[in-house]
Amino acid sequence: MLVVMKPHASEAEIEAVLEKIRSMGLQAHPIPGAQRVAIGITGNKDGLDPGHFETMPGVADAIRVSQPFKLVSREVKEEDTVIDLGGVKLGGPEIIAMAGPCSVESRTQILEAAHAVKAAGAKLLRGGAFKPRTSPYEFQGLAEEGLKLLALAREQTGLKVVTEVMDSENLAMVADYADVLQIGARNMQNYSLLRQLGPVKRPILLKRGPSATIKEWLMAAEYIVSAGNYQVALCERGIRTFETMTRNTLDLNAVPVLKALTHLPVVVDPSHGIGLRKHVAAMARAGIAAGADGIIVEVHPNPDRALSDGHQSLTPAEFDALMKQARVIAGAVGRVM
Amino acid sequence: MLVVMKPHASEAEIEAVLEKIRSMGLQAHPIPGAQRVAIGITGNKDGLDPGHFETMPGVADAIRVSQPFKLVSREVKEEDTVIDLGGVKLGGPEIIAMAGPCSVESRTQILEAAHAVKAAGAKLLRGGAFKPRTSPYEFQGLAEEGLKLLALAREQTGLKVVTEVMDSENLAMVADYADVLQIGARNMQNYSLLRQLGPVKRPILLKRGPSATIKEWLMAAEYIVSAGNYQVALCERGIRTFETMTRNTLDLNAVPVLKALTHLPVVVDPSHGIGLRKHVAAMARAGIAAGADGIIVEVHPNPDRALSDGHQSLTPAEFDALMKQARVIAGAVGRVM
Amino acid sequence: MLVVMKPHASEAEIEAVLEKIRSMGLQAHPIPGAQRVAIGITGNKDGLDPGHFETMPGVADAIRVSQPFKLVSREVKEEDTVIDLGGVKLGGPEIIAMAGPCSVESRTQILEAAHAVKAAGAKLLRGGAFKPRTSPYEFQGLAEEGLKLLALAREQTGLKVVTEVMDSENLAMVADYADVLQIGARNMQNYSLLRQLGPVKRPILLKRGPSATIKEWLMAAEYIVSAGNYQVALCERGIRTFETMTRNTLDLNAVPVLKALTHLPVVVDPSHGIGLRKHVAAMARAGIAAGADGIIVEVHPNPDRALSDGHQSLTPAEFDALMKQARVIAGAVGRVM
Amino acid sequence: MLVVMKPHASEAEIEAVLEKIRSMGLQAHPIPGAQRVAIGITGNKDGLDPGHFETMPGVADAIRVSQPFKLVSREVKEEDTVIDLGGVKLGGPEIIAMAGPCSVESRTQILEAAHAVKAAGAKLLRGGAFKPRTSPYEFQGLAEEGLKLLALAREQTGLKVVTEVMDSENLAMVADYADVLQIGARNMQNYSLLRQLGPVKRPILLKRGPSATIKEWLMAAEYIVSAGNYQVALCERGIRTFETMTRNTLDLNAVPVLKALTHLPVVVDPSHGIGLRKHVAAMARAGIAAGADGIIVEVHPNPDRALSDGHQSLTPAEFDALMKQARVIAGAVGRVM
Repeated sequence: MLVVMKPHASEAEIEAVLEKIRSMGLQAHPIPGAQRVAIGITGNKDGLDPGHFETMPGVADAIRVSQPFKLVSREVKEEDTVIDLGGVKLGGPEIIAMAGPCSVESRTQILEAAHAVKAAGAKLLRGGAFKPRTSPYEFQGLAEEGLKLLALAREQTGLKVVTEVMDSENLAMVADYADVLQIGARNMQNYSLLRQLGPVKRPILLKRGPSATIKEWLMAAEYIVSAGNYQVALCERGIRTFETMTRNTLDLNAVPVLKALTHLPVVVDPSHGIGLRKHVAAMARAGIAAGADGIIVEVHPNPDRALSDGHQSLTPAEFDALMKQARVIAGAVGRVM
Repeated sequence: MLVVMKPHASEAEIEAVLEKIRSMGLQAHPIPGAQRVAIGITGNKDGLDPGHFETMPGVADAIRVSQPFKLVSREVKEEDTVIDLGGVKLGGPEIIAMAGPCSVESRTQILEAAHAVKAAGAKLLRGGAFKPRTSPYEFQGLAEEGLKLLALAREQTGLKVVTEVMDSENLAMVADYADVLQIGARNMQNYSLLRQLGPVKRPILLKRGPSATIKEWLMAAEYIVSAGNYQVALCERGIRTFETMTRNTLDLNAVPVLKALTHLPVVVDPSHGIGLRKHVAAMARAGIAAGADGIIVEVHPNPDRALSDGHQSLTPAEFDALMKQARVIAGAVGRVM
Repeated sequence: MLVVMKPHASEAEIEAVLEKIRSMGLQAHPIPGAQRVAIGITGNKDGLDPGHFETMPGVADAIRVSQPFKLVSREVKEEDTVIDLGGVKLGGPEIIAMAGPCSVESRTQILEAAHAVKAAGAKLLRGGAFKPRTSPYEFQGLAEEGLKLLALAREQTGLKVVTEVMDSENLAMVADYADVLQIGARNMQNYSLLRQLGPVKRPILLKRGPSATIKEWLMAAEYIVSAGNYQVALCERGIRTFETMTRNTLDLNAVPVLKALTHLPVVVDPSHGIGLRKHVAAMARAGIAAGADGIIVEVHPNPDRALSDGHQSLTPAEFDALMKQARVIAGAVGRVM
Repeated sequence: MLVVMKPHASEAEIEAVLEKIRSMGLQAHPIPGAQRVAIGITGNKDGLDPGHFETMPGVADAIRVSQPFKLVSREVKEEDTVIDLGGVKLGGPEIIAMAGPCSVESRTQILEAAHAVKAAGAKLLRGGAFKPRTSPYEFQGLAEEGLKLLALAREQTGLKVVTEVMDSENLAMVADYADVLQIGARNMQNYSLLRQLGPVKRPILLKRGPSATIKEWLMAAEYIVSAGNYQVALCERGIRTFETMTRNTLDLNAVPVLKALTHLPVVVDPSHGIGLRKHVAAMARAGIAAGADGIIVEVHPNPDRALSDGHQSLTPAEFDALMKQARVIAGAVGRVM
């Protein structure tokens, strides 16, 4: 059961609901949100009667939710969530392309990449300033210097910027520079970090953990949304399977399944998903055909000299060719791009 | 190393090559084929010099193959294999749709299904007469009665027929009725059966085993091809992963990877792949966008009353709608449908 | 529902039950067994009332089975099945060791291996005469010549022989020579072959398929048992996961789970399971500690020169050392060895 | 290449090495440690000559490491790491049992559990005060109140305390109360958190991520060790596979593989590993037989009323019975318990 308070419910009204829940021997989980408070109820073995709550003052709704994820569910909100980035709308009729290098490496590199992906039709620039690397001895990103270069590229091109935040220590700093905050696959179940994204005034791109089920992924999104940030997009980037010819197994099955279960936008990352440059375009096309709201693609001016992920980065020319095909596929599924 | 004999190499020429191999302390594996004999050489720790063989009488070529799969590899044969089914060409510019019920259940059912998928644009009729079922207590198919009904449907519609053969005992019988023989996922590494497909004059649709790597799958195809049957198509039908919301995880990554590694046609089975009726069309579209040469889709006149797989079968109307979208996507990737 | 007929139920009594089932609009699956007929009933949406059948003449029992596997379930038969191989009892208090080379390679090799594993305490000799190999170009076994050598080794040592049967074509031949027939992992769901094991008068060692769930594995055993052969042992040999440092992931969790669900004996194969010689002993010990009824271990007189699986075969001395440790662990879990 | 500085190398000596590395066009990654600085070198395509560094002032060693993990590798340190917790030694001849409830729930519960597991022979008390839960609506632990109760239980029983730290915000607080800090499976690749464990004066129990390869797990340990904390133990707790009958698949194969690759102690968690109360003891025994240095087991005074993980928690009596068996198995592998 989820009790959703009206936007301007008073403290006293909220407290009355909490007290009522406790008096029933159940646990109340108040979830302060940007615009309204929701109160999750747990501890009930069987279904609760919404009638207990829906007539109380300040209560907007009492929702009996069949899925373990609630606020992100289409049961709770039927219409698509559209994330508006100053005119660039993720989750609407337009399929949004995000592109750029794995890591921000230098002023020249990021500007060159930004101008190239802009020209090809991308609306967001991707690029990592903080890089989670399997080895502590590998290149870990340019940190704030990288963020500044992303901001510069935005200034020059008008592209919005999506970049990864790895921890709460750097959250405020990254949020200062970025338009969209990416949560990496390895942090998908870093619940402490997820909770801190609630009060942040930036949309979140939540990558799927490499062994996360769709349900666990939606539960991770629920952490963010229940903490008050409703601007969350989900990014499929490949799961871990037994197959070794590809870096990961891009799970496009997740796309239609998610679109049915949740109102949040769904983005596909073919670069990490298959991890092989020559096959990235095929998987990007397939992602669009499967119903994705966006793609995020690694593009590097000179992939062979990239400090990270060069083997899966497209050249600007390859990205441009992909965009041309992508537009036709978008049309075939009733979208624009 | 693979020594490929000329089409009409004599017994003596072949024996001379075998003798030469043995004299080097290596194992020779003569592979009688429909048109020519190939001789696999194993036991060599390092690479062999092709010069040992390529000047011998009757030898067409001595191929040093970097991959463990050889005859199915693009290294050995660069041009696409096109399987010609009396005018229906799998592996050429046209993307071929195969459709029909999971199991043949009755005369009415299969004829109704056949006419419907024909009208929507399918070129092959699928339908199982022998059904491998997880439980010995489940419906196992109509056997020869089912094959006869498939033949009747072919007669009425002109559709070609693809159906599964489960064992050597029924191989000749199934080959009598079918245009294409399907080897099911669970039999992908039934090497005894694969070898017996060599002399059969029917193309083979080889489904991927649920936990088979792409390499193992190509090795399974190599068993068939090396036994003399070069008409093999590969069918991706979903792999087994940790995800439980979908029946399997349709691995579309395999499509571009296969198209690069092998000259054999690649078919996608979205029905078994995702296993949920409402999402089959999305995965079929994605498969085409990823580069598949064909799709195979479960269609049943009345899915809710199907004896098997009803939850993943499309209605004729849903299949018709899918075909319309599929044609647009095919155009976007330079194919027709 | 499973209707179990009395051992000497008449044809007429059986037919009456079948007729009754059909008259209820359900499917009847008569399962001829060695000693009695069982009749599986399918097609019922809800539970059936056993009372419909249990008073009919010739009916021993009408079992409402909660699991999809029935005859192999502890619900149907509570006491452990003990397979008696002329005094060697698998499934009783003694933990049975089976050992020998991957493949029978030569008279010298198999006799040397047999004498060594006998001396160390093994009760069965393993060795493949028919080898399912991923590549058609690899050593495929000595066939009947290998079976003859196994029989010779049995004659000299008194060890029982367990060896793989790959197909129905060679089933009778292998059954002539072997004491136990092994069904390999890749054939675990070769249902046509499984059914043919019903009338065979030899116990079966059914290996788990690399991606088979425990339930599917038990259903495969159900195929054999329902066809009349109740002498089936299950062999865990490693499943396929994402981990690449080991050949497979030996799933010892399956051991206690199986012991609770089924009355059939459970054997562990640490050689294929972990696939690394230096770690085989640790996994064999762990298998015994987890409750296995037997272990099957690859032992080769000279692993570095083995034609197959040398990297995971123990030397006779290593096997002898393992057996000494194994006996202590067996004692710790109340068994002998 | 890893350049290890002497314990009291001067700033100038370190700077000289850094300068040398940069002058070679490579990246230097200084890793400040508790006792000495190590400098990882990356950017070299081929192997580096250690001679470049090993004669420089202040340099202890220049290590060419074949594995990507370095400081945790047996190549770098051959002898076992023994973590001394005031007399309780993890990684030495004694196998250490850690036990207690999933979550600290109340004063009565934790004290009762502590006394019971102490009586049975456990040396550490486990219990979560901060609980990473899949759902934001589930019980999240008692936080500092739970830590205080753990400290109280330590006072009363003399048991050492191991408990989870979820984030940097609470790191200092948890370190104040706990003897060993547990990093949960979902945080195994939370690199920001791992790095902060370097300066902490507490041993770390690093759980394996549910889809982490052994190599990735060792790389995660390398993050902690390279940041200065050499007191790290690895805890196998089950990986994610396709099997659904068990909560996870406890991967005991990892135990002997790790013991060969690393000098760090290895602990097995059968409770999360198999996730079924009646099978926990079998997996604990198997873990010991496989060579683990410790086990960590969920024990609750009243599992059926536990707020979390009751279905996999042993009763005190079950734990006591397990410990008796465990001691015999420990003896069989040359250990004490």
